[in-house]
Amino acid sequence: MPDSVLVHAPATVANLGCGFDVLGLALAAPYDTLRLRRTDAPGLTIAHLDDYGLPTDPAHNVAGAALRALLARVPEPVGFAVEIRKGIRPGSGVGSSAASAAGAVVGANALLGNRFSRLELADFAMAGEAVASGARHADNIAPAIFGGLTLVRALEPALDIVALPAPPLWVAVVHPQIEINTRDARQVLPAAVPLGLAVRQWANVAGLVAGFLTADFALVGRALEDHVVEPARAPLIPGLAEARRRALAAGALGGGISGSGPSIFMLNRDGETAHAVAAALGSVFAELGIAYQLHVGRIAGEGARVVAE
Amino acid sequence: MPDSVLVHAPATVANLGCGFDVLGLALAAPYDTLRLRRTDAPGLTIAHLDDYGLPTDPAHNVAGAALRALLARVPEPVGFAVEIRKGIRPGSGVGSSAASAAGAVVGANALLGNRFSRLELADFAMAGEAVASGARHADNIAPAIFGGLTLVRALEPALDIVALPAPPLWVAVVHPQIEINTRDARQVLPAAVPLGLAVRQWANVAGLVAGFLTADFALVGRALEDHVVEPARAPLIPGLAEARRRALAAGALGGGISGSGPSIFMLNRDGETAHAVAAALGSVFAELGIAYQLHVGRIAGEGARVVAE
Repeated sequence: MPDSVLVHAPATVANLGCGFDVLGLALAAPYDTLRLRRTDAPGLTIAHLDDYGLPTDPAHNVAGAALRALLARVPEPVGFAVEIRKGIRPGSGVGSSAASAAGAVVGANALLGNRFSRLELADFAMAGEAVASGARHADNIAPAIFGGLTLVRALEPALDIVALPAPPLWVAVVHPQIEINTRDARQVLPAAVPLGLAVRQWANVAGLVAGFLTADFALVGRALEDHVVEPARAPLIPGLAEARRRALAAGALGGGISGSGPSIFMLNRDGETAHAVAAALGSVFAELGIAYQLHVGRIAGEGARVVAE
Repeated sequence: MPDSVLVHAPATVANLGCGFDVLGLALAAPYDTLRLRRTDAPGLTIAHLDDYGLPTDPAHNVAGAALRALLARVPEPVGFAVEIRKGIRPGSGVGSSAASAAGAVVGANALLGNRFSRLELADFAMAGEAVASGARHADNIAPAIFGGLTLVRALEPALDIVALPAPPLWVAVVHPQIEINTRDARQVLPAAVPLGLAVRQWANVAGLVAGFLTADFALVGRALEDHVVEPARAPLIPGLAEARRRALAAGALGGGISGSGPSIFMLNRDGETAHAVAAALGSVFAELGIAYQLHVGRIAGEGARVVAE
């Protein structure tokens, strides 16, 4: 059993358009890097090797809160010293808080002889998400832990996560540097959905899952429409409609808002197309005078993992 | 090109619990039997070789309406004489009208050299459903034409049907002899769905499709819950809750209301279990003093088809 591990924890795209709150996938990049050291003294220390000014009090840090949930299930006296280098910008909409929470519990589990299942780790990591957004949700945590494509089928009465193989697609993500608070993004959501729209939404969810699992990527493209959440959130993201238009013209299968935004993701059949689509996405925000970051990569087959001891 | 064909058109289970209005599957039995003869004189004649008193005026008969939609796309002067022997009781909730409509257009297509695609045939057959229920819907038509498991991803702007392989499961269906009008069954539906419930519903739809496609039948069982439609329709079907309880105790994976009811379906891993589940379902209605029919069979890989010329 090592007494120190280095962990990479990936960015993730939650929702995938129609799959609001339930579907997600892991990105090959960017990722957070965490160094965890086991200590004999109980307790946690958190240090951030980055400039984002995130809290380091374990009760208010996403990694700290996740580790506290894990430690509550560990009978022996043990603690962790954690150093986090954020590769994923907070507030970007690609699961920054989920990555740190997932990376922390995956690292701690390795330092404890891997006694917990991935489902248990996801449950612990959700305590980190609760610190970040006020709600225990798993749509970023699930792909950050399991990798590939994930479905959070249920939170209650028991957490039920379905891990599906990573489709051989490439993702292009643009992160326009505008601020959207996750709480705000939830407040614009409709309280109820007209039945006809709800039916169209779950038809698309079914189509998306079927398209991924049967490698029918034209179907994936057709199913990437969101009749419920995107109409409510689109006003928060200037350029969204134009970004989609240009991405589709550049060959993207389809896409939408990543998580609660402001990032926008597009799925693509190959790397060449993904790079062209990223350029198209960037061009929109360049013209709007909004700074942006681009990420291009495959869907990652693995979630957070120990890369060195 | 034959000038007369004999067609079998299967019963179907629409909705599959959470997949209201979009998912469906074909049953190996029961089925309608149709004899179609091509006539040089334009026009349609419909005869019913059964005792259900269904209309034979082509404009008001489901097979007639479907054939009229098909003939509107045929330039040459041609007509059909159709004899229908219903194997599927009207009003049972296992796609009786869809079977007759699907069988009619599949037979007519064979008599015309198979010039239409299955998607076009589904579109014609929906005209039959409109006669039966007042609405153009495809949730029974799709499996009645394509067989196996089907998803109606969209009706507009273009009909989009996804045909998926038949899972190797067995279906047990009980048809309690109570009357539920499709229009009534739609009137009890909620106009809108609270967002949280809608999310749980599409999580289950995703789980159901994933379970079928990855042969994870425990997941299929967990995903067979319906938070939206069954609560509204359950009061129309006495014995439903007890039927589910006994079916699960007898080994069923899960199930629910078939279509708009009153039939109840249960999915099962094998034939032996399906027969035990059917007996359990029947016992509930026997105790309630309600006559019932049972159907047990595999999910059919094929939809309506010509069985003899």
